[in-house]
Amino acid sequence: RATTLQLTVGLSDEDQCVQSMPDASPTKWHLAHTTWFFETVVLLPNLPDYVAFDAHYAYLFNSYYEVLGPRHPRPQRGLLSRPSLQEIHAYRRHVELAMVSALRAWASEAASSLVIDSCAHLHSILGLVELGLHHEQQHQELLLTDILHLFSCNPLLPAYRTGTAPKLPSPSSEGAHWLPLPGGVMDFGHPEGAKPARTFAFDNETPRHPRLLAPYQLASRLVTCGEYLQFVLDGGYTNPEWWLSEGWATVQSQGWTAPTYWLAPGDPRRPSEHWQVFGLEGVQRLDPEQPVAHISFFEAAAYADWAGARLPTEFEWEAASSTSGMTHMMGPVWQWTRSSYEPYPGFRPHSGAVREYNGKFMVGQQVLRGSSVATPEGHSRTSYRNFFPPAARWQFAGLRLAKD
Amino acid sequence: RATTLQLTVGLSDEDQCVQSMPDASPTKWHLAHTTWFFETVVLLPNLPDYVAFDAHYAYLFNSYYEVLGPRHPRPQRGLLSRPSLQEIHAYRRHVELAMVSALRAWASEAASSLVIDSCAHLHSILGLVELGLHHEQQHQELLLTDILHLFSCNPLLPAYRTGTAPKLPSPSSEGAHWLPLPGGVMDFGHPEGAKPARTFAFDNETPRHPRLLAPYQLASRLVTCGEYLQFVLDGGYTNPEWWLSEGWATVQSQGWTAPTYWLAPGDPRRPSEHWQVFGLEGVQRLDPEQPVAHISFFEAAAYADWAGARLPTEFEWEAASSTSGMTHMMGPVWQWTRSSYEPYPGFRPHSGAVREYNGKFMVGQQVLRGSSVATPEGHSRTSYRNFFPPAARWQFAGLRLAKD
Amino acid sequence: RATTLQLTVGLSDEDQCVQSMPDASPTKWHLAHTTWFFETVVLLPNLPDYVAFDAHYAYLFNSYYEVLGPRHPRPQRGLLSRPSLQEIHAYRRHVELAMVSALRAWASEAASSLVIDSCAHLHSILGLVELGLHHEQQHQELLLTDILHLFSCNPLLPAYRTGTAPKLPSPSSEGAHWLPLPGGVMDFGHPEGAKPARTFAFDNETPRHPRLLAPYQLASRLVTCGEYLQFVLDGGYTNPEWWLSEGWATVQSQGWTAPTYWLAPGDPRRPSEHWQVFGLEGVQRLDPEQPVAHISFFEAAAYADWAGARLPTEFEWEAASSTSGMTHMMGPVWQWTRSSYEPYPGFRPHSGAVREYNGKFMVGQQVLRGSSVATPEGHSRTSYRNFFPPAARWQFAGLRLAKD
Amino acid sequence: RATTLQLTVGLSDEDQCVQSMPDASPTKWHLAHTTWFFETVVLLPNLPDYVAFDAHYAYLFNSYYEVLGPRHPRPQRGLLSRPSLQEIHAYRRHVELAMVSALRAWASEAASSLVIDSCAHLHSILGLVELGLHHEQQHQELLLTDILHLFSCNPLLPAYRTGTAPKLPSPSSEGAHWLPLPGGVMDFGHPEGAKPARTFAFDNETPRHPRLLAPYQLASRLVTCGEYLQFVLDGGYTNPEWWLSEGWATVQSQGWTAPTYWLAPGDPRRPSEHWQVFGLEGVQRLDPEQPVAHISFFEAAAYADWAGARLPTEFEWEAASSTSGMTHMMGPVWQWTRSSYEPYPGFRPHSGAVREYNGKFMVGQQVLRGSSVATPEGHSRTSYRNFFPPAARWQFAGLRLAKD
Repeated sequence: RATTLQLTVGLSDEDQCVQSMPDASPTKWHLAHTTWFFETVVLLPNLPDYVAFDAHYAYLFNSYYEVLGPRHPRPQRGLLSRPSLQEIHAYRRHVELAMVSALRAWASEAASSLVIDSCAHLHSILGLVELGLHHEQQHQELLLTDILHLFSCNPLLPAYRTGTAPKLPSPSSEGAHWLPLPGGVMDFGHPEGAKPARTFAFDNETPRHPRLLAPYQLASRLVTCGEYLQFVLDGGYTNPEWWLSEGWATVQSQGWTAPTYWLAPGDPRRPSEHWQVFGLEGVQRLDPEQPVAHISFFEAAAYADWAGARLPTEFEWEAASSTSGMTHMMGPVWQWTRSSYEPYPGFRPHSGAVREYNGKFMVGQQVLRGSSVATPEGHSRTSYRNFFPPAARWQFAGLRLAKD
Repeated sequence: RATTLQLTVGLSDEDQCVQSMPDASPTKWHLAHTTWFFETVVLLPNLPDYVAFDAHYAYLFNSYYEVLGPRHPRPQRGLLSRPSLQEIHAYRRHVELAMVSALRAWASEAASSLVIDSCAHLHSILGLVELGLHHEQQHQELLLTDILHLFSCNPLLPAYRTGTAPKLPSPSSEGAHWLPLPGGVMDFGHPEGAKPARTFAFDNETPRHPRLLAPYQLASRLVTCGEYLQFVLDGGYTNPEWWLSEGWATVQSQGWTAPTYWLAPGDPRRPSEHWQVFGLEGVQRLDPEQPVAHISFFEAAAYADWAGARLPTEFEWEAASSTSGMTHMMGPVWQWTRSSYEPYPGFRPHSGAVREYNGKFMVGQQVLRGSSVATPEGHSRTSYRNFFPPAARWQFAGLRLAKD
Repeated sequence: RATTLQLTVGLSDEDQCVQSMPDASPTKWHLAHTTWFFETVVLLPNLPDYVAFDAHYAYLFNSYYEVLGPRHPRPQRGLLSRPSLQEIHAYRRHVELAMVSALRAWASEAASSLVIDSCAHLHSILGLVELGLHHEQQHQELLLTDILHLFSCNPLLPAYRTGTAPKLPSPSSEGAHWLPLPGGVMDFGHPEGAKPARTFAFDNETPRHPRLLAPYQLASRLVTCGEYLQFVLDGGYTNPEWWLSEGWATVQSQGWTAPTYWLAPGDPRRPSEHWQVFGLEGVQRLDPEQPVAHISFFEAAAYADWAGARLPTEFEWEAASSTSGMTHMMGPVWQWTRSSYEPYPGFRPHSGAVREYNGKFMVGQQVLRGSSVATPEGHSRTSYRNFFPPAARWQFAGLRLAKD
Repeated sequence: RATTLQLTVGLSDEDQCVQSMPDASPTKWHLAHTTWFFETVVLLPNLPDYVAFDAHYAYLFNSYYEVLGPRHPRPQRGLLSRPSLQEIHAYRRHVELAMVSALRAWASEAASSLVIDSCAHLHSILGLVELGLHHEQQHQELLLTDILHLFSCNPLLPAYRTGTAPKLPSPSSEGAHWLPLPGGVMDFGHPEGAKPARTFAFDNETPRHPRLLAPYQLASRLVTCGEYLQFVLDGGYTNPEWWLSEGWATVQSQGWTAPTYWLAPGDPRRPSEHWQVFGLEGVQRLDPEQPVAHISFFEAAAYADWAGARLPTEFEWEAASSTSGMTHMMGPVWQWTRSSYEPYPGFRPHSGAVREYNGKFMVGQQVLRGSSVATPEGHSRTSYRNFFPPAARWQFAGLRLAKD
């Protein structure tokens, strides 16, 4: 949780209060909601003496848990100039102290008890604590994508941080080539394993199950800005032939002409004769060797069609994730897949209040695999299933090509 | 094509002109569009002397083929009081005569020629003719669902035809039971076979390919109106816990309280103390033994969750399609599956102008399997993949339960 | 009422069924609604034995009378393919016969009675009959403007009637000049007079009342298409300086570039190197000497500002209506005034069911004076107050300039 | 301008940044825009050496002046977390220093010059400075209405300031009675007078001109909360008969049930068995003797109709403004009138850049007269014409009854 606060250094109270669109949330809301999660899911049900920091917060900072009662409408999160950022900081400290104290008490209680029920209870609580921490990590990434979107709506195009974007190992200097994958029956999803060795995964990554893949090929690296620029210059956004029907409708209704944070030469906000890209470090000249980012699934699929290839399924991606010669599987940008976000065979959601965590979103979204520069350290794994609607552009999302 | 016209007997010129919502089309438009298909795809490219019936029709009756040029906006199809229904009938006759004459000419040309190119050309044309006929069959079903929707918007609730809806073999009198299916690696999709034996399939049903299924169980029959009524009466439409997130949002924003054509007791349009159902035969008392119909994917999925079960995947459905004891696989209502509409591995769209036929819709839609009372005879097969957005309710669509 | 039906000759059943926008109504609806008015306001309350033609029509054909119960939503009038046009024709005949029979009976009853109450009752009924006839005349004009709008939405741009639009006495050949008006205190509105001499007026034209006008000047004729074209060519639709704020916002959001039924040179629907105008006679070459028509209040006001003049108030118009040298006060097009539609001092609405006839629309609309080519003979008078929202373009509306 | 800043004491940086709806602006924006006005209208055109504080501000803080170039979209004013509040404060100081210095220089230049041109130039500049100060006073009131609206959207319902709302001399304890006014020809609007005695007025209050009024009666005081509550309890918001057509449509589409800041008994945000009212001092129990406030024109007109009276015209209001026995003409709440906002006869807008100040809004709005508790001292006068769309509720607006 210290990392969460660390991300807000350099942001003013005003920056942390504003909501730039219904899909994005204010920084302050992220700080409060991740705290509300621990308070609501861990402290209140399990600590009889615990008093909520503020009774209103249950309403204000519930995100989407219907069973936990009514909530403040998502598009109005940015209207909450009160409670102040300082109050939210106090809320975080309050809950952290209560958590530490409770965990100590539960641990010593369990240690001094031989009753198996007590251990089971502690075990279930620790599961929720672990979930709460991974939940907070997810919001660390969203905090960055949301602040970037806010700044992109500001004609001043302010930088979130100074310096230059970290150079990735340049994809193009390596050259792209097709890596053949054999297919066959393989297991997918997070292994459950025996309890001591068990590692964390969200419910949507389980159960581990076999699938049959046909042989396929996967590009050794991500699509770069330079490659994507060729698509743009080749009429990518004015020719319907490469687009899914709904994608093309979106291009036209939204007036898309390039990735969302690209500035064409002559853009009045930052005149230049070059293509430029807006990012956490502000406006920078487009680097043709960096991976393209902040595109929608629609754009990824159109690019792939234009390039005579296709997007991989999430299983093709996962099966290739440890293949030698495959670069950038983790790190630079999330990778749109051709897979709709669906339950795995035998899927069981988390139980209790967190039942709504993942399962209820399993329609109308596409799976992304990998991770991005904004993903917190220790939060990525090859079974991870990120998901967003096909028109979403504000995530650090790019693509890798596949073919039969 | 005679069947298409047969379906319009009993409909007035006015009935055939009106559009009830952007998703639905006027009867007259269906009559013209299916004709435009033959004219545009078969006659104009292949018959040098052919003169289009009316040069405007290319614009007016193109549905969604971007490569074939601009088109009349879909939501405004109902504004076309001109050309008149009589002109559209003349258009149909004109194109039919030209088709018959051309087919005869091509056949005799091919018969008298030993040149393989000529045969290949004829073969490719015949493929388009066959596609055009299956295309027209699809519109025969849409014509019925669209006219039913139009009549449902009319406070008079007129009947499309007299008489009673054909009684299905009653599902409930048979009793429902779970049929166990073994899973394993099986082939799915339409078999291509050698040419003489080849049967028609759309591109989206191919290529045939193997998949691995886990063992599962499938209900021996469809969910009935009586069963679904229990869900309604149990608070199905007021309790979010069984709904996908987007489904629940739709329930609230659209004010859904029951399947779209159900009339609750006391409905002012047709007062009664009983639940009633509007259909092609007008308003009839709800028959608890008939399969529930005209529900969305969201409702199907919520019902399944409420019932402690789930929807089958399209592959689970297909694998069970010829299982002994399984009833109503074909006929009464299309069956929503848990599968998003995605390309099969190795999918190749039709080529040429009809490339846009299916592939560009492969995002944001759910697959339905089986067929319905409105499906033309000879148009159904077990590999058939119907698809609609998850909120669509105006099709003859119901569900069958599955479980692990 | 025979005139109403006469206007529909040449329209197909389909033409008469469709609704092109929420503000417009289908021809068939006009035929039914004007009949419903007589049935609801005259027959049902005053004829104990009268049986409504169809009990559903009270719901289907009420326009906006809240006190008369719920009604079919205005934007869905075009979905009523049933009742058929033939049934509406029968409805008209049924009500006409009942009206004639009732009027004869009431007249003979009154003639044979010396009771003053009976005369008063008959007098009140006759007032409603007279209102019903003027109401029907209003719908005769709306029937034409609505069918013209429908045909304008059809890419075929069909003509409502053949021939050439009637040539008006050409405004420009007369030359335009400013006629000075002296102002002063004058009476406005319809004179009530003694009963035998009384002539009909709507409630909104009364009471007659004095107003004080400053001296002003009014153009001797209407603005012509040729003059308006100069405004278009001078950047009238691309320069905000002449527009009211809401007008300019409308220009931009609706993409207006000229009057609504003008076709710029090269319009793909009817290619030509000239400007053309769509009207009841179909597409005709723009005649620079005819009055401009089918513009909104916003356009009228912007033109006036561009021309260094202004629109007259409705009182300036009325005061000048019988001035010598003033042409086209009646007939070619309604004339937008600078007056908001407000109640006259001492305004009292009609009583009873027709209380809602005019008064409840007295906000957010602008007054038009004069009459148009579509106004029925005998329906125009100098005190007449027509009114539409400032963005409405589908009426036969133009303008006349004024200045201080 | 010190008063403007004084109003922001007690508001956090966050409070001052957020925009609650497109019609309202953030406090910070008000601070910047009023400063931009002086910089753009006075300093830049008249001070050759003046350097704009920040070149971006011309774009960011232009409100609606089309001739001054493109501007940041109004609905996105709340996204500007940058420039920070501190930067805006520095902007204000920068412009204030430049203004003081320039005014001194111009004054001494004029004093030492005998050239009449120099005096005329200074005179014109001083006119703009005066306009800028009245402009800022207008925004002082808007700042309060906008922050009140923001806080009303916050479930915490925070108070802008502590204490109790200033008690007005209680209307009801005085009793309401009708004051008869004689009508006749009178002058309206701001008198222009000789220059030394001239006082400020906006262009829309001129020219002074005569009008003829019929005799009428005006209530001696405003309508109170207690009286308005009777309307609410009598079904005021569920019965269409008292409403203008567009008003009733708004009631239904917006779900209005009482004035916008009223809390019905049992409101979950602040449970109570009494009616309560939210205001600058937070939630207070409804005081039946205080004037009703925060209602729309639609509500004011409906109340008047329910009460068997009507709203006065703006001229009836002005003619009565100095009548003995008339209370609350100034101060508590703006008073909706039955007058649409139209140009006075002979109206001429301000010239130059400020031509767009008032005139271009003269359609679709209603005039309010008087002033409110939020109007700055010295800003009110009996000729003042405030104006808002008929559905606007967030102003301090109430009503006074009139009758013939």
